[in-house]
Amino acid sequence: MRNIASFILAAAAITLAAPASAQFAKPDDAIKYRKSALTVMATHFGRVAAMASGRAPFDAKAAADNAAIADAMAKLPWAAFVEGSDKGDTKAKADIWSDGAKFKDANQKMQGEMSKLAVAAKTGSLDSIKAAVGATAGACKACHDVFRKD
Amino acid sequence: MRNIASFILAAAAITLAAPASAQFAKPDDAIKYRKSALTVMATHFGRVAAMASGRAPFDAKAAADNAAIADAMAKLPWAAFVEGSDKGDTKAKADIWSDGAKFKDANQKMQGEMSKLAVAAKTGSLDSIKAAVGATAGACKACHDVFRKD
Repeated sequence: MRNIASFILAAAAITLAAPASAQFAKPDDAIKYRKSALTVMATHFGRVAAMASGRAPFDAKAAADNAAIADAMAKLPWAAFVEGSDKGDTKAKADIWSDGAKFKDANQKMQGEMSKLAVAAKTGSLDSIKAAVGATAGACKACHDVFRKD
Repeated sequence: MRNIASFILAAAAITLAAPASAQFAKPDDAIKYRKSALTVMATHFGRVAAMASGRAPFDAKAAADNAAIADAMAKLPWAAFVEGSDKGDTKAKADIWSDGAKFKDANQKMQGEMSKLAVAAKTGSLDSIKAAVGATAGACKACHDVFRKD
């Protein structure tokens, strides 16, 4: 058994005044940042998904906590898809920039599903979690199919 | 000008029932996760630090939002310093595991300073932010000096 540090969160709506591109000194910094945010998100989502699929024992509190973190993380990567960051250590397809509206729709769909998962996990209902995990995974895949290189 | 997605956060104290090591399938997964969490934390902390040092114009809302995210991220990396993850693509020194209590003290000191920075940033006082950025950076460095390879 081990206590892990409390994860303090506070409600905040970020509206950065500066252009997103100004937030990263180099395109490579933006690439590293968005991959990192997605890694952290995927780790916590994966723990909930493992419970949903029966690969891990269901622990309602762990499911709720991990879903809450995944939900928070899901907001972060998108501002880092800055112009010029299609080149480098990335699987991002050029369509992200040539069809920005569609990319935004796709990632917002995922964010919406992840938020629903966080709500479902708070209820402690494994059936609700299973449904929400499936919808979220589907939204991840739908975006990857179009916007991520193999 | 660009609106960046809202970053939803909710108060939560994580106490995972499973041993931390069970949360990662492989030591390499734990290494990738903790480096990712630190990268996201450092990116947001860096934006506040840039304002504190005058390298970026002071924007009170952006400072508060970025400090809140850095504060949340500061809670995450430590559960990923699992046994066996001293080997691999990591600069972690063996002392992290041989002197776990000292490592915990050092990372908790950083977490405390980052939380104080988030509080300071909410006040909108640049002087308070400068002081808190300095204390936080000092806590980062103190831990790196002892527990991170060059």
